[in-house]
Amino acid sequence: MLAPGSTIGILGGGQLGRMLALAAARLGLKTHIFCPPGDAPGSHVCDRITYADYEDMAACEAFAAAVDVVTFEFENVPVASVERIANHKAVRPGVEALRISQDRLLEKNFLVQLGIPTAPFAAVTGAVTLARAVLQIGLPAILKTRRLGYDGRGQAIIHNEADINGAWEGVGGALSILEGFVQFEREISVIAARGQDGAIAYYDPPENTHRDGILDTSRAPAAISGQLAEAAKLLCKRILITLDYIGVIGVEMFVLADGALLVNEFAPRVHNSGHWTLDACTVSQFEQHIRAICGWPLGDPARHSDAQMRNLIGNSVENWSALAAEPGAALHLYGKAEARAGRKMGHVTKLFPKS
Amino acid sequence: MLAPGSTIGILGGGQLGRMLALAAARLGLKTHIFCPPGDAPGSHVCDRITYADYEDMAACEAFAAAVDVVTFEFENVPVASVERIANHKAVRPGVEALRISQDRLLEKNFLVQLGIPTAPFAAVTGAVTLARAVLQIGLPAILKTRRLGYDGRGQAIIHNEADINGAWEGVGGALSILEGFVQFEREISVIAARGQDGAIAYYDPPENTHRDGILDTSRAPAAISGQLAEAAKLLCKRILITLDYIGVIGVEMFVLADGALLVNEFAPRVHNSGHWTLDACTVSQFEQHIRAICGWPLGDPARHSDAQMRNLIGNSVENWSALAAEPGAALHLYGKAEARAGRKMGHVTKLFPKS
Repeated sequence: MLAPGSTIGILGGGQLGRMLALAAARLGLKTHIFCPPGDAPGSHVCDRITYADYEDMAACEAFAAAVDVVTFEFENVPVASVERIANHKAVRPGVEALRISQDRLLEKNFLVQLGIPTAPFAAVTGAVTLARAVLQIGLPAILKTRRLGYDGRGQAIIHNEADINGAWEGVGGALSILEGFVQFEREISVIAARGQDGAIAYYDPPENTHRDGILDTSRAPAAISGQLAEAAKLLCKRILITLDYIGVIGVEMFVLADGALLVNEFAPRVHNSGHWTLDACTVSQFEQHIRAICGWPLGDPARHSDAQMRNLIGNSVENWSALAAEPGAALHLYGKAEARAGRKMGHVTKLFPKS
Repeated sequence: MLAPGSTIGILGGGQLGRMLALAAARLGLKTHIFCPPGDAPGSHVCDRITYADYEDMAACEAFAAAVDVVTFEFENVPVASVERIANHKAVRPGVEALRISQDRLLEKNFLVQLGIPTAPFAAVTGAVTLARAVLQIGLPAILKTRRLGYDGRGQAIIHNEADINGAWEGVGGALSILEGFVQFEREISVIAARGQDGAIAYYDPPENTHRDGILDTSRAPAAISGQLAEAAKLLCKRILITLDYIGVIGVEMFVLADGALLVNEFAPRVHNSGHWTLDACTVSQFEQHIRAICGWPLGDPARHSDAQMRNLIGNSVENWSALAAEPGAALHLYGKAEARAGRKMGHVTKLFPKS
């Protein structure tokens, strides 16, 4: 167990790194953020910051030497850098979880090997394999780059054959997968943590809505049966155990009309759909992640209140003063100077008596 | 209203400054802490820090120039320094609240002038006035220095006449007051905030226990009638309005056996007996203070859960790993390296369903 006063290294200085640093501070732990130069939201609240490119191996080595354990706040940190750091200090969750979640094809194959249902998919390496994939999967379908896609970027919908060329141009001819459209009833996610002792703590799955490919709201708990919630947790558990995972994971799932569950993707980190835990639980997903990677006992994931979290995207944050005045609303702003379209600027959570 | 991204100056870098900085960060506000050199708990989580003595007027001026509004985390900041800063930037709550609360005699006279009941007291300037005060107040009584007393320091109990000389030596011959012993049934406090628009938000009064002169536990709500809670809030309101106060105040009160209320003292800042609001309310006392001094609307002070807060004093913090494992417990550690006797190292809050 890392004692209070120890330093946690965080790769990435966005809002997730910021909220991890705030959670670490509550426990008397220090944080050292590593991120590329710029006004990083996490830089305002950490003890120390290294501004360097992730590919700067000398900076990675110095960072590893300066901290007691390392984690990452987003899954697009280069694996080679994380491997270099892992030669010196424990990186949690491990390199394998990072490598798989960086690549949609590896991720889908990993899920399939675990017997976890997913949407139908096929690998796309060029125009020929795309045409074959369309035949295999059927239309409509969605073309997604294997790497560096998030918040709806690197995706193109193919409604009919006339869309195929445009879609291929839309993803810039990158290695991709074609995914069949899933008619789902609702989207849920499982936010869970696994500790170094193998204990797993699950928050009750929230129900999520998206807008323009970006998470819009999460409501906890999801309007699903207890049985379905348990089934969703078991799928998550299979991933955690296979990866010998330590830390918080976010697993996105679709609930179909017949009650079947499909896993969409997982994020090896704290997850936007778990932000409501900051206000509705004694121990938030951020503190839970800090506890897990430091070898502390996991906290109680019980919910004291029901919650509805709404993201503040782009200029919707300009409404902050009205949001601050809403009774029962917990406002969180990330300290980003510029409200660009599609940028996550903050979120607001409303609490309700526990159902 | 100070927009997100503005910088709050905080005089003092202890745990209260630290928790204020964390609350400001949640709202996208920056903090700049001013405190004497040393390992200040607040220094780990603020954007900027000035290490200087409070008497360093040049440093005070530079600090005022660098921030948008100023507050203080403890009441023993020199008034002259705060006045200097107030020439340049708004200091909230104001200089007057600070001046009065620094001096037990001014404070008692202020309360008396407002018609607020207190324990009987008399000013002590030397051996002669002490002897006269003993005759006036009766014994047992407690001798308290007018200035710089907190957590039971600068106090000496006088049980009988033989104790008088020792007590006078015990307080180092400082200007003092002699206070009559109050037989109280319980101790409560009112934690409230007044905004720039004059709105006042009260948390439900907690019930407090002390050990060795230091707050030990706060339980919210206190086991008192709704009528008594309202009466306590009204006493607090009188103080807030008279001082044209902006920010959070903590007013300590005694409840006597007949239901009468006496005000013991007030602190012009966030208060230890309000720490449970971090976990049991949507908007904590720390965020409430930040909102008030920045001209934001006050947050909803409603409690979603009942709470019991216990301070971790001195080496009781060594139990941190067991505390972290307690279900339903929210652990807060202040990042202090050395667990000296009587030092507040952290606190733990347990939540219970709302009564």
